[in-house]
Amino acid sequence: MQERLTKVTEWMNEKNIEVAFLNSTENVFYLSNFYTDPHERLMGIFLFKQAQPVFILPAMEVGQLKNAGWEYEIIGYSDHENPWKFIEAIIQKKQLEKAEAVAIEKDVLTYRRSEEFLSFFPEAKVISVEEKLNAMRVVKDNEEISIIRRAANMADYGVQVGIDALEEGISEMEVLATIEFELKKKGIREMSFSTMVLFGEKSGDPHGNPGDRMLNAGDMVLFDLGVVMDGYCSDITRTVAFKSVTDKQKDMYQTVLKAEQASLEKSKPGNRIGDLDKVARNIITEAGYGDYFPHRIGHGMGINVHEFPSMSHLNDGIITEGMVYTIEPGIYLPGIGGVRIEDDVLVTMDGYETLTKFPKELQIIE
Amino acid sequence: MQERLTKVTEWMNEKNIEVAFLNSTENVFYLSNFYTDPHERLMGIFLFKQAQPVFILPAMEVGQLKNAGWEYEIIGYSDHENPWKFIEAIIQKKQLEKAEAVAIEKDVLTYRRSEEFLSFFPEAKVISVEEKLNAMRVVKDNEEISIIRRAANMADYGVQVGIDALEEGISEMEVLATIEFELKKKGIREMSFSTMVLFGEKSGDPHGNPGDRMLNAGDMVLFDLGVVMDGYCSDITRTVAFKSVTDKQKDMYQTVLKAEQASLEKSKPGNRIGDLDKVARNIITEAGYGDYFPHRIGHGMGINVHEFPSMSHLNDGIITEGMVYTIEPGIYLPGIGGVRIEDDVLVTMDGYETLTKFPKELQIIE
Repeated sequence: MQERLTKVTEWMNEKNIEVAFLNSTENVFYLSNFYTDPHERLMGIFLFKQAQPVFILPAMEVGQLKNAGWEYEIIGYSDHENPWKFIEAIIQKKQLEKAEAVAIEKDVLTYRRSEEFLSFFPEAKVISVEEKLNAMRVVKDNEEISIIRRAANMADYGVQVGIDALEEGISEMEVLATIEFELKKKGIREMSFSTMVLFGEKSGDPHGNPGDRMLNAGDMVLFDLGVVMDGYCSDITRTVAFKSVTDKQKDMYQTVLKAEQASLEKSKPGNRIGDLDKVARNIITEAGYGDYFPHRIGHGMGINVHEFPSMSHLNDGIITEGMVYTIEPGIYLPGIGGVRIEDDVLVTMDGYETLTKFPKELQIIE
Repeated sequence: MQERLTKVTEWMNEKNIEVAFLNSTENVFYLSNFYTDPHERLMGIFLFKQAQPVFILPAMEVGQLKNAGWEYEIIGYSDHENPWKFIEAIIQKKQLEKAEAVAIEKDVLTYRRSEEFLSFFPEAKVISVEEKLNAMRVVKDNEEISIIRRAANMADYGVQVGIDALEEGISEMEVLATIEFELKKKGIREMSFSTMVLFGEKSGDPHGNPGDRMLNAGDMVLFDLGVVMDGYCSDITRTVAFKSVTDKQKDMYQTVLKAEQASLEKSKPGNRIGDLDKVARNIITEAGYGDYFPHRIGHGMGINVHEFPSMSHLNDGIITEGMVYTIEPGIYLPGIGGVRIEDDVLVTMDGYETLTKFPKELQIIE
């Protein structure tokens, strides 16, 4: 954590940023090892160009912050106190009102809070601290990778539970409930997003919602799920056939699998990020399904299930060692059905490793 | 929905607000009956003082918006398009650049989006549209009440499932998993917050996290849970004793129950909101537990599980018919254990009805 705080402070010195305020659950966790969501209450870290950081949060969470290892100043406020008064006092004491530049999380801080914070710095230019945090978080260290590996392993398990639960007449919601039940019994408190279990034609809608659709022979079954573990996410998609499979379904499946494999093989330090989407999209287009792959190939993943980099064909960024992202091509035929295959990918020194390991050859579940 | 849109437009005319932008999932749902969370993608409603509203959202969600009944203009944009360009074009076409005032959701809109939106209106005063929306949402109509009633009923069921699952040696997470499994089988896709199941001394921390603590005879067991149903939340807390109960536990329980009852009885149109907290707090303080009730008595509840009004002792607002809020006094003895009792309360013409109906006399579970 110390090293991370130092990196941000160095950046602030380079940019002449007097004060930075970070208040997203994710960035605060990244810099403090303290994971909390105080909802409407103010919580965050103030970093200073030339002074030690200060953490402000509701008084009742101070103990947990200390347990997480925070060693700097802490301001705990009660529900009847206005936390901005404490912040104002710090700014005044440090005589920072004339700051030329300050930094906030532009993509997170609400307009109302920005009004409060920026009112202390009438002359300051406002810089996005995410510039720096995104660049730092995009490369995972060994400890982060080992947590994500465990989270991915638990996602694999979730798919296995889902497949084991399939039987004629069961509903999407019943399968979903079984998956989450088994994961919770393993200690998972939170899924990284709303679990998807879609049968038959419902899998043909990339934004479909699980419901009471019942399973029939001949349905494709799409699972998309992930867990949060020690602050990090996983995200897997697998599609299987139930009892039987048509040539058309097979063709869709093999096309998606081929596209995924091609994209995975481009996952290598030095390659252009956008090319991972392109190579998969070309395969799907050549197979005649170009109009039915409406989303980007994937997204960075870590503390947020969607984070930098965006794996879009427009991204001119370069793949580097330690990046973790999803690769998830899909084909969705409206009213008929869909196939998506998604892995969590770690970029290694000279290639990649998929952290999700669930088998990908087409399975016909009996 | 039409009536709600008209009310906001009338308010805009009163305040001379040329354009209002609403982009929270909750307010958008309230005004359009369309419930969506497009995450990092821009989505929202533009309201105009003197023109029809416009809905902007990712193209792939346009069909769902129409299905929800939206009858006005829709702008669907693709991932490679910049939605702000469409917004700029509308502003220019309607010649609104000289607006004297515009409104945004100050508590939701991010600084970055406010930069984009407000750049179109260099001279405009910025007003919080929440002023109006909070005032509207605080009084529920009959349809909303009937949905919340069903959600509360499902929360009651969740508590029953949890109690039925109690047995010596079971863990908090196992009980939690069982509750959510049974609720999901009833079609619940989302809990309204992270379910809490806390045993023994763990119930003494109002922010405790369920884990692998196993149930022993003599433990108090605290359940706090709620579901999201058709866009509306419920929220219930019950505390029971397992196998046996000490005089101290009984005393805490009866004090909380008495405090809750006193607060409920103040739930009547015309009363001051803050007095509901005060009356309960006085009872708890007189019983000697004043230092162990560290939170407000409750919160408004509806589309958000926490919404207006805040049921704090500082709130000078007046109770009105149709309000829905929680009443949830608690006593938490660190290292020993806690008791909280929480109901969802509907204010009626001359009093209140608790929408959560689970029994509240102290239960000793065998």
